[in-house]
Amino acid sequence: MFEVAELGHAVEKTVYKERSAQLRTELLTIQNRLGSYPFPVIVIISGVDGGGKGEVINKLNEWLDPRYMRTIALSNATDEERERPKFWRYWRTLPAKGTIGVYVGSWYSDPIAQRVYQKIDDPALQAELTRINQLEELLTDDDALIIKCWLHLKKDMQVKRLKQLAKNPATSWRVTDKDRQHLGLYDEFIGVAENVLSETSKACAPWLIVEGSDIRYSSLTVGQHILERIRQHIQHYENRLAAADQADETSKSQLEQYNLLDALDLSLKLNKTSYKKQLEKYQGKLNELSRHALEAKRSSILVFEGWDAAGKGGAIRRLTEAMDARHYQVIPIAAPTDEERAHHYLWRFWRHIPRAGQVTIYDRSWYGRVLVERVEGLAKPAQWQRAYSEIVNFEEAMLAHGIVVMKFWLHIDHAEQLARFKRREEISYKQFKITEEDYRNREKWDDYQKAVNEMIARTSTGKSPWLLVEANDKFHARIKVIKAYCECLEKMLDEPNK
Amino acid sequence: MFEVAELGHAVEKTVYKERSAQLRTELLTIQNRLGSYPFPVIVIISGVDGGGKGEVINKLNEWLDPRYMRTIALSNATDEERERPKFWRYWRTLPAKGTIGVYVGSWYSDPIAQRVYQKIDDPALQAELTRINQLEELLTDDDALIIKCWLHLKKDMQVKRLKQLAKNPATSWRVTDKDRQHLGLYDEFIGVAENVLSETSKACAPWLIVEGSDIRYSSLTVGQHILERIRQHIQHYENRLAAADQADETSKSQLEQYNLLDALDLSLKLNKTSYKKQLEKYQGKLNELSRHALEAKRSSILVFEGWDAAGKGGAIRRLTEAMDARHYQVIPIAAPTDEERAHHYLWRFWRHIPRAGQVTIYDRSWYGRVLVERVEGLAKPAQWQRAYSEIVNFEEAMLAHGIVVMKFWLHIDHAEQLARFKRREEISYKQFKITEEDYRNREKWDDYQKAVNEMIARTSTGKSPWLLVEANDKFHARIKVIKAYCECLEKMLDEPNK
Repeated sequence: MFEVAELGHAVEKTVYKERSAQLRTELLTIQNRLGSYPFPVIVIISGVDGGGKGEVINKLNEWLDPRYMRTIALSNATDEERERPKFWRYWRTLPAKGTIGVYVGSWYSDPIAQRVYQKIDDPALQAELTRINQLEELLTDDDALIIKCWLHLKKDMQVKRLKQLAKNPATSWRVTDKDRQHLGLYDEFIGVAENVLSETSKACAPWLIVEGSDIRYSSLTVGQHILERIRQHIQHYENRLAAADQADETSKSQLEQYNLLDALDLSLKLNKTSYKKQLEKYQGKLNELSRHALEAKRSSILVFEGWDAAGKGGAIRRLTEAMDARHYQVIPIAAPTDEERAHHYLWRFWRHIPRAGQVTIYDRSWYGRVLVERVEGLAKPAQWQRAYSEIVNFEEAMLAHGIVVMKFWLHIDHAEQLARFKRREEISYKQFKITEEDYRNREKWDDYQKAVNEMIARTSTGKSPWLLVEANDKFHARIKVIKAYCECLEKMLDEPNK
Repeated sequence: MFEVAELGHAVEKTVYKERSAQLRTELLTIQNRLGSYPFPVIVIISGVDGGGKGEVINKLNEWLDPRYMRTIALSNATDEERERPKFWRYWRTLPAKGTIGVYVGSWYSDPIAQRVYQKIDDPALQAELTRINQLEELLTDDDALIIKCWLHLKKDMQVKRLKQLAKNPATSWRVTDKDRQHLGLYDEFIGVAENVLSETSKACAPWLIVEGSDIRYSSLTVGQHILERIRQHIQHYENRLAAADQADETSKSQLEQYNLLDALDLSLKLNKTSYKKQLEKYQGKLNELSRHALEAKRSSILVFEGWDAAGKGGAIRRLTEAMDARHYQVIPIAAPTDEERAHHYLWRFWRHIPRAGQVTIYDRSWYGRVLVERVEGLAKPAQWQRAYSEIVNFEEAMLAHGIVVMKFWLHIDHAEQLARFKRREEISYKQFKITEEDYRNREKWDDYQKAVNEMIARTSTGKSPWLLVEANDKFHARIKVIKAYCECLEKMLDEPNK
């Protein structure tokens, strides 16, 4: 695989001077155009030690406009990062649309190093690569451009390069003991890299292997590659725009019509006395369990979806009353801010992933993608259709980190909703909750119902099922929610430690 | 001071039920109105251990709409926080305009604890309190509402309360060894608290002392106080708006007219040969020095201001060429995002404060407040006039953390600017840098000049002076900048460790 990068490519100083001046002009021009396109450019510079990653990145910083690019240098995770799922540190640093982010130390660094040092085995590496492919596919599906460059060196060149670096007082500091240790592992490293590169070189995000023995050659090659990929991507985007103008949106969900919601028994009820008794019981239990979960540093993510006026807020409050306000956060999902709009739609949910032991309650969530955005036409069919697996993968990342994920759908019927709207209008501090839009949404009940059914069918997984809550009776609904969360925490705390 | 809170205030259960229902309605109503006002509400709940801070906060969470409030529970600083100036963790958590943030564990916690445990002496405490007052004044000057509640307990009540908590299995976990240790220090704690409360009870942010022996009483009192303060603040804001409509903006800067910029010798020049020689010399030096600074974990903040086309970008690039892209970040300051607009104007600069050993270069900065915002009328006279001391305090917080702060003003004359605009229009990759607005700004040269002069006069301090750079000749300017930064780093690295 690396033979093409062992031919001794080099560029003469005078040639370099001319070509780099030209390249710089072209890069600045394309970067300026890029600002008006709704996609980010993610550049990953990886490769062998001594392959010149730092030098290439410094050149890119010299050539590009620093206002619309950022170098993201990740080494050891901070404690805030370690307390969240692995990819959180990448999500928080993703470049915004219209800008370039250059990663040195990317999602590839850890899996490769861990495999070389035999801290993980091949199947575990494979699982990591699957997750990486999913991430890259998710980003490129959202039109992100991912450019991956691998700087390669022959074994003897690596030895030579590290010796050079070590000899020069200005660079000797960069040769760490870790590098020397790596040197002894060159063959293992190359073996793992070959595997990683071939498994992750997909059409949506291919690897470019670049010979790293001559910095002038490698900088020019990487710079030129970035230029061409951005040009292509803009062209591709323009073509698609033009095509979409003509084509009819014929794509439709092919899922059979069936109705999980109709199967719910909305007559389920609880009288006030037993409600009060059970509420007290489960709030006491939840208080204790959430304390244990905090001690065990096990976080929870609770998702509330449901019809307007289904009682999400009330159910949430019955939970939070039993919890310590210092350890939970309720995140209401309304219109995204402009910083959020400048990223992938999942970005704004990653932002609020709880620290170890904490609880985040989402009042509406990422499921908006397949509910309101689908029904109101805010997401294209291709977008919301692929969202199902994106969401499943997202939740799997949480579960893999040991986070409890629970999803509640609060269900009421059409008549009950109307009755509640009317009642709300009569209670002073709830008036502001009802707007004309709420009434308009009622007219789309069937479309929403279809979307809810498909959502449940496609995203209810063994590890993270949807809990459908009959909510025509608030008492029944609240108890069902709090009881379910208690049982889930109990089960989790009984498990042997992850 | 605390006598009023030792009278045994208590509220009967039935009275509580009625009053809390009423209070909840009123709080939700006012909270709903609050959303449309451009100021945040910052609630600080502090007090003695066992005083019921947690209980009061849980009540507030129950009463208020969780969508527009947030509980900010800060205990030990994370490593990302420890690497920045002390107040960074508060800035990053400040509530947005129109929302409520409730702090448990605020900027008061550390100074009080450190004084009680004699880790700092009285003058050091006093210095902390001055900084706190400055922060609160800065926030309230920007219309923030700060509500500070202190929950007090008599000594014997505290003992009793902690015993109760320890006895009940549901609360015993909350009584930590630290609490028991505190108990022995009750008198010292009260002494320090008295000092802190009287020093920081200002008109803009007074303390309310609340008896904490009865949770019903303290929750109602705090809730009622929050309600009234928000009402007052809205009223006050409305009154000011009405008054401002009628009043003429007569306030003007009273500073004498003088001209620091005219004193600069713009004929200073460097020929290409000596430029190249010196650039090589200082880039080599900077490369080495910035490496040492990284090792010593000493960060730098470099601020570039200057006329359009004065060569800020070029000067910055001559610095970054010598530095490792993994350790610096260039932050171009353009229009704020909507999340940034929802905070104090300094918030978006706090966001980018570098981690230990890193460098942040601001291409334009917080000085926009007293330059473009002043000249273009985007900030009111009162706002930009008080900004001078706000900025000085902000920079002092950086300096106190051991961060190098350098501020460069790149100066060219009116004719040179025109010549550069013309030249830029001829270079393809620089064309996009020139817009009509740039020409319009030229017409306000005198106003800007006045603003620059006043800025320099008011914000050039002994520890963080402005470096005025004669920039009609780019070679001279670039060398002056890089040389100055080198000298500054050298001096800093020679100092005994802070």
